[in-house]
Amino acid sequence: MTIDTALSELETLLGKRLSRSKSDLDLHGASETHFAPAPPDAVAYPENTEEVSQIVKICAAHGVPVIGWGTGTSLEGHALAIKGGVTVDFQRMNKVLAVNAEDMDVVVQPGVTRQELNEELRATGLFFPVDPGANASIGGMASTRASGTTAVRYGTMRDNVMALEVVLADGRIIRTGSRARKTSAGYDLTGLFVGSEGTLGLITELTLKLRGQPEAISSAVCSFPAIGDAVNAVIATIQMGIPMARIEFVDALTAKAFNDYADAGFPEVPHLMVEFHGSDEGVKEQAERFGEIVHEFNGSDFRWSAKTEDRNKLWAMRHNAYYACVAIRPGAEVVVTDICVPISRLAEAVEETAADIAASSIPGPIVGHVGDGNFHSSLLVERGNAEEMAEAKRLAARMAERALRLGGTVTGEHGIGMGKLDYMQAEHGDGWAVMSELKRTLDPQNLMNPGKMVRMN
Amino acid sequence: MTIDTALSELETLLGKRLSRSKSDLDLHGASETHFAPAPPDAVAYPENTEEVSQIVKICAAHGVPVIGWGTGTSLEGHALAIKGGVTVDFQRMNKVLAVNAEDMDVVVQPGVTRQELNEELRATGLFFPVDPGANASIGGMASTRASGTTAVRYGTMRDNVMALEVVLADGRIIRTGSRARKTSAGYDLTGLFVGSEGTLGLITELTLKLRGQPEAISSAVCSFPAIGDAVNAVIATIQMGIPMARIEFVDALTAKAFNDYADAGFPEVPHLMVEFHGSDEGVKEQAERFGEIVHEFNGSDFRWSAKTEDRNKLWAMRHNAYYACVAIRPGAEVVVTDICVPISRLAEAVEETAADIAASSIPGPIVGHVGDGNFHSSLLVERGNAEEMAEAKRLAARMAERALRLGGTVTGEHGIGMGKLDYMQAEHGDGWAVMSELKRTLDPQNLMNPGKMVRMN
Repeated sequence: MTIDTALSELETLLGKRLSRSKSDLDLHGASETHFAPAPPDAVAYPENTEEVSQIVKICAAHGVPVIGWGTGTSLEGHALAIKGGVTVDFQRMNKVLAVNAEDMDVVVQPGVTRQELNEELRATGLFFPVDPGANASIGGMASTRASGTTAVRYGTMRDNVMALEVVLADGRIIRTGSRARKTSAGYDLTGLFVGSEGTLGLITELTLKLRGQPEAISSAVCSFPAIGDAVNAVIATIQMGIPMARIEFVDALTAKAFNDYADAGFPEVPHLMVEFHGSDEGVKEQAERFGEIVHEFNGSDFRWSAKTEDRNKLWAMRHNAYYACVAIRPGAEVVVTDICVPISRLAEAVEETAADIAASSIPGPIVGHVGDGNFHSSLLVERGNAEEMAEAKRLAARMAERALRLGGTVTGEHGIGMGKLDYMQAEHGDGWAVMSELKRTLDPQNLMNPGKMVRMN
Repeated sequence: MTIDTALSELETLLGKRLSRSKSDLDLHGASETHFAPAPPDAVAYPENTEEVSQIVKICAAHGVPVIGWGTGTSLEGHALAIKGGVTVDFQRMNKVLAVNAEDMDVVVQPGVTRQELNEELRATGLFFPVDPGANASIGGMASTRASGTTAVRYGTMRDNVMALEVVLADGRIIRTGSRARKTSAGYDLTGLFVGSEGTLGLITELTLKLRGQPEAISSAVCSFPAIGDAVNAVIATIQMGIPMARIEFVDALTAKAFNDYADAGFPEVPHLMVEFHGSDEGVKEQAERFGEIVHEFNGSDFRWSAKTEDRNKLWAMRHNAYYACVAIRPGAEVVVTDICVPISRLAEAVEETAADIAASSIPGPIVGHVGDGNFHSSLLVERGNAEEMAEAKRLAARMAERALRLGGTVTGEHGIGMGKLDYMQAEHGDGWAVMSELKRTLDPQNLMNPGKMVRMN
């Protein structure tokens, strides 16, 4: 068997760092959302780029798929081995290779998580700002073009990855970009690989931009009588140019979930949770200006705090929103949605979505990185209930159609994986065909994370 | 003849908007720098995307090259018709199609210039920040991934183009990106076309991010006894996180050129020219903090002004630096260089370059967008003096090698065109081969601006 030959060669290369244990295969065949398990034939744990290249070459020689794996926190089934093959788990490639404090950049291996990285950076006065909530690996975050709560201020992975080392489908190792802050030297290969979900190659090293830790940070939370008021307050805030570090929306159902899960004591109405970064004076001024906007849009319960423990509690709660929401319906399967629209269309997008969910048979709390025009609903489906699953998928499809109708995108930050493949043609038209042509060029055998992002047949 | 058949079909399509006049061909066969003239066989003036698609299809059918043209201000021979063919001049596609003030974005045709665009935006309170000096077309700026004096604050064209319409080499019209502020939906085709210099397709529409016009703007200029002092002041400024809107270096020779060209009254030593954007209070605070750094690095003559006329005079002078420098040696041919390094290596990069030029036989004033680690020398070669031209090219080559040795790039913002092709292998290694593979996929006949950026043979 071809796969057996490949696995035997890989075992020679990696020894015990090639795993075929059932528990390992099951772990790497599962995802956090509703997709059916799809375990690989083996899991490889490389320790350096050269090994990754060898793994890819062996797999290429035998026609075996290769799937990258960070921490397994993706939401659209990105890392499922739906055609079998070898999952490359980067957990042993988790080093911070160089902190260039003067240049405010850092060189890391893909397996380091964002929290590990920021822990290592703490003493330097610098930090890596992209924060998708989950403690994801940097390689995974780059591969899905992750963003999250801080993108409104600091941008997404697209904006914060300066350079990459990539192993291509034929095992070639290339470097893209450099540590220079800008370049006009050739096609933007860094940008091409960021967000490519492992379908064009495996990222084995990343150079990231860092930011100075703010002199002062404060946070605030406030409530609104209706979704439209909260969203319109966000729009006004962005348009006034207040440099919000975070501006997050949660709906009434999520507020209730926070109360049940974390004893939050929130009124069960829509809320905004915000954070300000700057000087002591600047943070205060931002909070005051934001407070005026809140008032103008009928907000209340405006609670402002410069205390670290209050802030940590607030964002821990926000980061656990997914789990708090799932706890509304214990054991539920989750269809997670993720659309992003121009901010002028945000209020109608959220309101239409909320009305659509309210008219359905299943709960779907809404949260969002609304400063970017991006929001999610976690549609909670009774496990094994095919009718509800179909209803959830109809709701998700209508959200995607709504995003496109309003000039937006079917995914702001979760990516395509398997879950959003059906919308690629509608969003990109012939552009999707161009993506397939690029994929075919760089991965003619369709072995790099096959079945995700593009269709090859 | 194939070209004749193509031109005859194009004439049927465009009528008088296909020009074969000698003056038109000569104009479109020249560049601003030292490259030999290379006129096209004809110049087409399309009025809409459909016509651009038809032009490309006709050229594709007859194997005729297609070269895009904005305002002809590129510096590396990007738009020279070195294999003949049809130059597509976008001057009739110069409309602002939609100003979405609420979303802070704008949709434009490629032929609009940055000054025309900002004129149209004036009343909205918004502006488009990218400023390469020349009044270039937006399409040309996107194609070369332009940046300039404000990139230190607002980013380059990479950061400010949200979406594109592109005519591919086979005439297909695709749309990339959307008006959503972020997306994870597929490969970043927008990023692939920005900076591709017309070698993958022709950009026929762009959606750009806008910024709020700052409440207050002030500018300042100061002088330093030595290059190293000025550059180290820049490094300290960036590392302290002062949000400079512009921070420009000019060397002693450029200061002299300003005196001769514009009666600037500068001491003939290195200078920094800076601009601050913010609130009245914020701009004042920034200027004070910058003033302290200047003092610390032996700077003097720190002149600060909030007056519009002072500021306009300062930046008009900076924008005319190229012409002021050329006037040092009237009639000279210019070899313009453009390297970018990590900021921690900037002082040595500038000092080594200055020493190298000082030891040569030709003048080479140095200016730079030093906040990004990016600087230029205009090497002034006596027209027709082959020995001097060879010397200039040696100096330029050593600058490029220096950039790579220091972890940077051979071009920060001018692009590759013809002038930097010889450094692509050294900068990108196998990454350049990948670029060629992408080019071959999207332009198998090598008709889109052939001979630039990649080598196909």
